[in-house]
Amino acid sequence: MLITEHGGNPLAFGNVTDFSANINPMGISESVRRAFIRSADELEKYPDPYCIKLREKLAERLNISEKNIVCGNGADDIIYRIVHAFRPHRALICAPTFSEYSKALSECGCEITEHFLSEKNDFEVDSSLFEKLHDVDIFFLCSPNNPTGRTVSQDVLAETAEICLKRDILLVCDESFLDFTDSKGIMPYINGNAVILRSMTKTFAIPGVRLGYAVFGGTEKAEKTASAGQFWSVSSPAQACGIAALDESEYLIKSAAYIKTEREYLINELEKYVEKVYPSDANFILFKAENDLDDKLFSQGILIRNCSNYSGLSSGSFRVAVRSHKENELLINAFRRLRNG
Amino acid sequence: MLITEHGGNPLAFGNVTDFSANINPMGISESVRRAFIRSADELEKYPDPYCIKLREKLAERLNISEKNIVCGNGADDIIYRIVHAFRPHRALICAPTFSEYSKALSECGCEITEHFLSEKNDFEVDSSLFEKLHDVDIFFLCSPNNPTGRTVSQDVLAETAEICLKRDILLVCDESFLDFTDSKGIMPYINGNAVILRSMTKTFAIPGVRLGYAVFGGTEKAEKTASAGQFWSVSSPAQACGIAALDESEYLIKSAAYIKTEREYLINELEKYVEKVYPSDANFILFKAENDLDDKLFSQGILIRNCSNYSGLSSGSFRVAVRSHKENELLINAFRRLRNG
Repeated sequence: MLITEHGGNPLAFGNVTDFSANINPMGISESVRRAFIRSADELEKYPDPYCIKLREKLAERLNISEKNIVCGNGADDIIYRIVHAFRPHRALICAPTFSEYSKALSECGCEITEHFLSEKNDFEVDSSLFEKLHDVDIFFLCSPNNPTGRTVSQDVLAETAEICLKRDILLVCDESFLDFTDSKGIMPYINGNAVILRSMTKTFAIPGVRLGYAVFGGTEKAEKTASAGQFWSVSSPAQACGIAALDESEYLIKSAAYIKTEREYLINELEKYVEKVYPSDANFILFKAENDLDDKLFSQGILIRNCSNYSGLSSGSFRVAVRSHKENELLINAFRRLRNG
Repeated sequence: MLITEHGGNPLAFGNVTDFSANINPMGISESVRRAFIRSADELEKYPDPYCIKLREKLAERLNISEKNIVCGNGADDIIYRIVHAFRPHRALICAPTFSEYSKALSECGCEITEHFLSEKNDFEVDSSLFEKLHDVDIFFLCSPNNPTGRTVSQDVLAETAEICLKRDILLVCDESFLDFTDSKGIMPYINGNAVILRSMTKTFAIPGVRLGYAVFGGTEKAEKTASAGQFWSVSSPAQACGIAALDESEYLIKSAAYIKTEREYLINELEKYVEKVYPSDANFILFKAENDLDDKLFSQGILIRNCSNYSGLSSGSFRVAVRSHKENELLINAFRRLRNG
């Protein structure tokens, strides 16, 4: 079994098609690539520690003050900064969900409670969450949730934001994959106790440079987070790529449409070959199959994410990224060969 | 007064010659620049989270196992990782010294004691340190020390390493500027309780990409540190630059020689214009002058580091980087104009 801590590990897997990492299948845009190469002329200087130009451009796009925005060395960097800035004692997270929340929380000795999402209910985050939002300092919500692919409904997001404000819980809503969905996310309901995480790495297919940002409802919490951790976390090339990427609105629209079509294709096809495919709104799909499916596919040159090490998932749970049509066909053909062999 | 948190801040200073950041004046080497540009082809993939190729090459150069090496998003990243991995309760640091140690320690609620270096003794770290190495969990030592520029003598390094091992104190020896000196550093005395920090950012003039590493005497502490913080902290371009840089042994020798000559030139000249120049073994020089010297030089287009916000330094303390001869002349000419004006 090839259980890795995360997808997208460039371990010695050789020449495989990697469905384990959830990156925009459109690939890097030419303008972002050019911005990266131009940034070679800036390497001898320290990066702007405040990411001023990037934050100003984000602020303009998001229609919020740049004082509410914090940039990081990937969205993961901001997860750790938030935890180290606020040092919560008790946290609530969903299960299954992205593993870095609990890893970061454990680093500061935080007690973690899990809200288990029901498999029968396709891992939907529903109103049963609200009664758990008690006696905690921080709540990490992921929408669309990794690895399930479900977005949280607008009603649940609105009420969660309101409850967290009322009960003084810091609400961290990780929307790293939101750009690939139709959801508006939690932005319409943001308040002083809420922060939204976004990944530019995934959206713009540039995981190599590491870039993410957070939008805080309140500037005080933004400042506290920005002050936590090292001074120069975001590299110059990452800032240059981010600034160029924000002009790529056409690319974003095309990506979301492409992923929607390909996701539907993959779900329809996967349903023929596996026990259960869970509904997804994102650029990845969770499904159940035989426990050794990953090994079988690997022998066909295909790497998928074994999710049996996620709390809240049983063995036989797997995640695949939505990739280009040609690559998605490769995956389906591999299934065909497996099932017919 | 232009007191910034660190040198090298690209705030709105416009067209100034920046003596506040301590970067190799030789500038980026062509092979490193080419490696950066080639890494554009790797941006769509996640970086290797384990930095395997870079660590193997470092291991070969340093004649130690790669299991003892941890890479980070700059040496600063590793300072925070160490603190979060070991969560020390009581720490000893020198004063004056680099401010990120206390900032990182404060983040985990650690109690900090300062060992004040004597100005009369030119801020040398001497055997008076040893009696302070009691009842602490961690000790940060910086050699050459930032901002004083003094290296710690081999005798003091050897005894410090031995005492820390005996008294179970984690010794973090920050040698970010060691490549610019003649010192062998603490490597000959490394043991299971010691870790050495090095900056590739400063040595190879690539602060834009962020790259540093740590050499641990023991693999267990290395693993614990590597596991702290986010999974993908070191970007692909940084890893590519680091791998290319390690072939630049000629560049390193030339840099150290160049800096030695220019440091002597600057010290000799500065002594004509300021109250006191402290001895330096590094690529920067600490001196005392009138409190508003930075403002005066700034009006001449020159940015220096006002060090009056360092614990253990009084107002009128300034640091300048050793830059290219042409730039160093600019600085001295500015002094000449100031003193003759």
